Amino acid sequence: MQNNNKTIPTILVTNDDGIHAKGLEALIEIVKPFGKVIVVAPEEGNSGMSHAITIKHPLRIRKHKRNDDVDFYSVNGTPVDCVKMAMNQVIKSTPNLLVSGINHGSNSSVSILYSGTMAAALEGCLYGIPSIGFSLLDYLPTANFEPTIVWGQEIVNIVVTNGLTKGTCLNVNFPVTENGQYNGIKVCRQNMGTWREEFEKRTDPRGQEYFWLTGYFLNEEPNATDTDEFALANGYVSVVPVSIDLTNYSEMKRISGLENISSPFQNELKNK
Amino acid sequence: MQNNNKTIPTILVTNDDGIHAKGLEALIEIVKPFGKVIVVAPEEGNSGMSHAITIKHPLRIRKHKRNDDVDFYSVNGTPVDCVKMAMNQVIKSTPNLLVSGINHGSNSSVSILYSGTMAAALEGCLYGIPSIGFSLLDYLPTANFEPTIVWGQEIVNIVVTNGLTKGTCLNVNFPVTENGQYNGIKVCRQNMGTWREEFEKRTDPRGQEYFWLTGYFLNEEPNATDTDEFALANGYVSVVPVSIDLTNYSEMKRISGLENISSPFQNELKNK
Repeated sequence: MQNNNKTIPTILVTNDDGIHAKGLEALIEIVKPFGKVIVVAPEEGNSGMSHAITIKHPLRIRKHKRNDDVDFYSVNGTPVDCVKMAMNQVIKSTPNLLVSGINHGSNSSVSILYSGTMAAALEGCLYGIPSIGFSLLDYLPTANFEPTIVWGQEIVNIVVTNGLTKGTCLNVNFPVTENGQYNGIKVCRQNMGTWREEFEKRTDPRGQEYFWLTGYFLNEEPNATDTDEFALANGYVSVVPVSIDLTNYSEMKRISGLENISSPFQNELKNK
Repeated sequence: MQNNNKTIPTILVTNDDGIHAKGLEALIEIVKPFGKVIVVAPEEGNSGMSHAITIKHPLRIRKHKRNDDVDFYSVNGTPVDCVKMAMNQVIKSTPNLLVSGINHGSNSSVSILYSGTMAAALEGCLYGIPSIGFSLLDYLPTANFEPTIVWGQEIVNIVVTNGLTKGTCLNVNFPVTENGQYNGIKVCRQNMGTWREEFEKRTDPRGQEYFWLTGYFLNEEPNATDTDEFALANGYVSVVPVSIDLTNYSEMKRISGLENISSPFQNELKNK
């Protein structure tokens, strides 16, 4: 197959849990039927790294041997570094698909903002690649990804066939259900919510305070039925189309009065 | 003033260039007339950290002495860590305003995705605080922030007076002009673009390759006149209202066919 790869679709795979994560192997299994798989993933776990890029220390890339025809590289950086390194140093032409994950843990609702998994998908989107981030609502290293395979392949199949609108990628979350079955797929919007009571305070042996990040998710729309949180709570796979354009267009009109400022400065402000 | 702070507005200030940045002092100067200023900023520079949070090592917070009535703290973490720490450990009630910056360097267009400055503003937004990220198109430590002060105060004044729609914050960028004057303010949308040729390859003394992140911005809309890039190139202060809801609502309809998947699995896929 490798000698004929001009006609075989190329699929770039990355994640934020690092090259040893079980979810990465599940994702490779999902996309293998669709083309030549090239993995470029972080050496170590990068949960919560969001869209961070590495500018303070140099990056290195390492090729790993495998027993299948997957090209497999690690980078000592973030998920977004991995996508950039893949696009600039590994892949000669734009891949046909980028997939990221499968994350161990949810990236629904506002968790997308903190997510390295989804940042990699957004980065792929910036390169014009149809991109999907996948997450399973089980953060354990031993999570069971078996139910995600066939549903993941259905979603990939549709994206490969129909494409995605430029500047848009998908945030796919798989629920955990008692019988391992899903009730179907819901195309939904991002649930609004926030995190609360986020630190655990401890004291070190020298009497100095330190804090571990922790806390719980507060669902601000518990009664909504069109959100990813609702879909997941009801046994559906949630699919949120996500835009790299963060502009709030309706707010542009509301704040247009800002353009009337022409002659600063109100001196009285300084004396308030 | 401190004894009467129930009636004085509270303003939370952070940045991503760290507590020693000149831009942080400029921002303090902007907001001082509007209330009690509390700074919680990263100990060190955190450019390119985006919405990253620190989960692998513990955080510590340190109070610093100053010669004015500004409360000033540093945290050994990211800009988003600083906002969370401020909200959970420093400030008793929700502040009236959060400002982040002034960043040394642009956060226009898609740079918002990588920006720690704007991530702090988005985090403030998640807490329901009217939030503004400020950046100046000069990355040098010695950048001249003088022209930003009066315009910054005008923008803060309007936001404090009128508020912002829930889930929306502002991405404000100041241009650099020859005469230090701005032509006004433009309320605009995020320009689309991407980064190219992003690595400089070097060889270390032991013959091993390594890479420094670098590259240039490719403006994908050079002829657009309603974007932040256009405003800045023409000497205007750009103001983009930014949403924490990343859902692409029009794309939801286009991909609604995904919901028709009910009976995986197409076995032939596996044999492709």
